[in-house]
Amino acid sequence: MAICLAVVGATGAVGREMLNCLEKRKFPLGEIRALASVNSAGKKLKFANRELTVRETTGAALAGVDVVLMAVDADQSLEFSPLAVKAGAVVIDNSSAYRMDPDCPLVIPEINPQAIGKRPKGIIANPNCSTIIMNVPVWPLHQVNPVERIIVSTYQAASGAGKPAMDELEETTRAWAAGQPVTPKVFPYPLVMNIFSHNSSLGPNGYNGEEMKMTKETQKIFDLPSIRVAATCIRVPVLRAHCESVALEFHNPITPDAARDILSRAPGVKLLDDWQQNRSPQPLDAAGQDNVLVGRIREDISLPGRGLMLWLAGDQLLKGAALNAVQIAELL
Amino acid sequence: MAICLAVVGATGAVGREMLNCLEKRKFPLGEIRALASVNSAGKKLKFANRELTVRETTGAALAGVDVVLMAVDADQSLEFSPLAVKAGAVVIDNSSAYRMDPDCPLVIPEINPQAIGKRPKGIIANPNCSTIIMNVPVWPLHQVNPVERIIVSTYQAASGAGKPAMDELEETTRAWAAGQPVTPKVFPYPLVMNIFSHNSSLGPNGYNGEEMKMTKETQKIFDLPSIRVAATCIRVPVLRAHCESVALEFHNPITPDAARDILSRAPGVKLLDDWQQNRSPQPLDAAGQDNVLVGRIREDISLPGRGLMLWLAGDQLLKGAALNAVQIAELL
Repeated sequence: MAICLAVVGATGAVGREMLNCLEKRKFPLGEIRALASVNSAGKKLKFANRELTVRETTGAALAGVDVVLMAVDADQSLEFSPLAVKAGAVVIDNSSAYRMDPDCPLVIPEINPQAIGKRPKGIIANPNCSTIIMNVPVWPLHQVNPVERIIVSTYQAASGAGKPAMDELEETTRAWAAGQPVTPKVFPYPLVMNIFSHNSSLGPNGYNGEEMKMTKETQKIFDLPSIRVAATCIRVPVLRAHCESVALEFHNPITPDAARDILSRAPGVKLLDDWQQNRSPQPLDAAGQDNVLVGRIREDISLPGRGLMLWLAGDQLLKGAALNAVQIAELL
Repeated sequence: MAICLAVVGATGAVGREMLNCLEKRKFPLGEIRALASVNSAGKKLKFANRELTVRETTGAALAGVDVVLMAVDADQSLEFSPLAVKAGAVVIDNSSAYRMDPDCPLVIPEINPQAIGKRPKGIIANPNCSTIIMNVPVWPLHQVNPVERIIVSTYQAASGAGKPAMDELEETTRAWAAGQPVTPKVFPYPLVMNIFSHNSSLGPNGYNGEEMKMTKETQKIFDLPSIRVAATCIRVPVLRAHCESVALEFHNPITPDAARDILSRAPGVKLLDDWQQNRSPQPLDAAGQDNVLVGRIREDISLPGRGLMLWLAGDQLLKGAALNAVQIAELL
């Protein structure tokens, strides 16, 4: 079964990684199309042994496509996803546009692959990157012992804000090193030698958009409105892997050893938890890796017996975005 | 009352800031001595309108001193602090050597100034930087509504590992910008474009030294062994201000507005919590500032009614170290 697949937003940070994932995983492609904005039309992108010429995203360019990987922002997705569905494609959307739509499944293949079956709108949503990275290791623990509460603080890379943000971090770092003024344009504040609260806007409860995604998307993916998640999302000067400090409260007693054993066999998870060498996941370890790295598995000493602490690192562009979308396409 | 004061470790990152604080706060000095290792003897340090010549730390150099600000590592403090006490001085020690000694008070002037009165060894300990920055805003809340549990994740600057670490972050950032290999010598891992778990060694429970300081020192400073603190301490590529993501559980119901009101009047605290502009504390705001900046004051939505989340930034070298020590000297 050879599939005709289009990547919309193919020149962006996530779009490029989608092409890389499709190539690396030998996705059964009949035809592949690289689509983007009119500004990028005509650009060449390497794919396998050939070059793809980028075309503008139009109804004509989407004709005959079976699957669309949508790697554009929410506003653009609201424009292009219905167009792709109308052209007969199933859309896997990386934006936030359809994630909380009750008619669109929100899928992490290691957690709720069965959810893709019911997609009345023809659109499957790819969760937020921080949500995916957190839940890949939390889910297998939850299967054994229900997780009731999650407190998470993130250390998020520039890649989450797209390729211009990654370029800006590189450029401002060079400016800083040269003793020149740092004047951000993509981010609202300097990121070199600095960190700041995620700049998605604050809701009436004081949580920003990114934080509420972690709460609401987890409840939807787990199909468990009662799970309580409180997040603090912070941007750090790192290029492309997110880290997360996670405190979990379980319904029943649990030990770090039991958790380590479960996580050592969990799909999509790789342990990096060497207490002798004091070695735990770092962004530089996770960049370019498919798995979510998990370390610092220890008892939450503020909740003895029933709490655990984890420290995670995952590639925001891969499992946090492109890889998860391609895995959903593989399920189809 | 003009005091003869010596700074031991005067050429280090904290020692230099101690001299700055003494000058800026017009500490009533009769005489000031800058002491350090034999390697630094003869160096000149600016102080007010004059130059201090650094001398080696010896019993003779300490003779006649009333107060010693000790800004060396724990091993050196164990050598020099008794020497200074023998010479008749009161020692304010910034290292971890005496913090958990029941005969040495552990003091944050905004919290437990009365503790300095009972110092049978003649040594007063200055708490860990992350502990100070966290507790300056937590204490006034705790006075109104007992805090029972704290979950904290830190974002710690290079300055916490001393001047060589700050220099290394600058040098490796320049190397990275020039496309050269990054080879850390002070830190065990690259810090530019990376973050890592604090490299103090792990105890049998999997917590590192820095994390257990936050737990045990808080219990001692609050004189409250029952307060439960679980920390995750992470180093980030920032020069000199620490940030902390803090989740607090209270004994009684509390609202963000009530907390904001308390913190707006708390000593050592400055609010930076602008929801309209989505503006909260950043390391670049806190660097060089005496106060701990507090923002993102919101309900912990995973513990409605009884939990609060805070986001803090404080200058590790000032309130986290030098300023707190000088404030203790002022109490004397």
